[in-house]
Amino acid sequence: MATLVVLRHGESTANRDNIFTGWNDVPLTAKGRQQAAKAGQLVAETHLQFGRLHTSMLQRAIVTSNIVLERLDQLFIPVEKSWRLNERHYGALRGQNKDAVKAAVGERQVKIWRRSFETVPPLLDHVTQDRRYDKFGPHIEPRGESLEMAYHRLMPYWTDEIAPRLLDGQNQLVVAHGSTLRALIKYLDDVPDEQISQVEVANGEPIRYDFDDRLRIQNKIVL
Amino acid sequence: MATLVVLRHGESTANRDNIFTGWNDVPLTAKGRQQAAKAGQLVAETHLQFGRLHTSMLQRAIVTSNIVLERLDQLFIPVEKSWRLNERHYGALRGQNKDAVKAAVGERQVKIWRRSFETVPPLLDHVTQDRRYDKFGPHIEPRGESLEMAYHRLMPYWTDEIAPRLLDGQNQLVVAHGSTLRALIKYLDDVPDEQISQVEVANGEPIRYDFDDRLRIQNKIVL
Repeated sequence: MATLVVLRHGESTANRDNIFTGWNDVPLTAKGRQQAAKAGQLVAETHLQFGRLHTSMLQRAIVTSNIVLERLDQLFIPVEKSWRLNERHYGALRGQNKDAVKAAVGERQVKIWRRSFETVPPLLDHVTQDRRYDKFGPHIEPRGESLEMAYHRLMPYWTDEIAPRLLDGQNQLVVAHGSTLRALIKYLDDVPDEQISQVEVANGEPIRYDFDDRLRIQNKIVL
Repeated sequence: MATLVVLRHGESTANRDNIFTGWNDVPLTAKGRQQAAKAGQLVAETHLQFGRLHTSMLQRAIVTSNIVLERLDQLFIPVEKSWRLNERHYGALRGQNKDAVKAAVGERQVKIWRRSFETVPPLLDHVTQDRRYDKFGPHIEPRGESLEMAYHRLMPYWTDEIAPRLLDGQNQLVVAHGSTLRALIKYLDDVPDEQISQVEVANGEPIRYDFDDRLRIQNKIVL
């Protein structure tokens, strides 16, 4: 009935430099822009016409979206930018080098912070108060999130903004982040909590879901 | 109280090749992208924070918008794309070389078609039916428009989408086209019909309007 394509942004400077990022707003690298263009080409080859693109409020996802839409020649479709699609907030880990953190606390702890469902990273002392979130009130910005917390703030967006449009027969494109896409895949593929650590989403690799008219998956494929 | 910045897209391939364009969806040239980046830099130097960007459904305006927002580091603001901000529809002239048309009908007639307020260009025989306008119903795409006709389909957008946000104190950015910006300037500066032929808007040259709390112009400046 309708198709969803989900895509993680291209390589960011933080991906390149192996840094915990979350809600920090880092740019794409030149390689990341190329990955976005290549992803756009892969999606263009499906000849899908999209009704809407959904992305986060972070530039690495928005610039990837712009590059993809240009490659698709579908720049004219509405683009929705929501904090609910933002990367999981990495709390006090943000801005820190992953190897340095491993050296300090051990590889096992870092793996748990990165890949478990429930574990909350060390929290920030206080909220950052970025002006881009002002209009949503004072309680939007987290001090840190587990994947589970990111899952719960993502789901209302799926339910209210994406699922109804798929049910209406409109193909949808989601350009987001490693953890929010893991959360979405957990929901779509019904992945148990204890298995989510094995799900990875690569930069710039589009995943296509074809649904029937009751939103049951008919086909899933990495493009 | 609030500031409006209006900007015409950077040079398109049709600008470069001296071709009537209107609703034809032509890309920016490399020079056009540079003009967009330079315009973004000029707007960045104002340190204005924008609440929203309004643009057309044509790629030359949308890509200019994306480049400007990236330069402003304000990619996260909502972007509204409306057919009401599309360029004036050039009817049967679209796709034709301006010099060739001048050779055929004379320079005076071309000047009237290009710069007068009321004159309608030769109409297309039938509507093009581009899928991007499908959702607005069958009566959106014109077969050709005078500047006056473009003015009248633009004004509801000003009244409903831009003016209320300025009155609410939010700075607004409009990235559009030569004729739709001439129409907007006609309204804002109260230019008589017979003088509008003298108003030109250059590619990539931002114009800033500062308004008071009743939307009276306090200051107008080309950045």
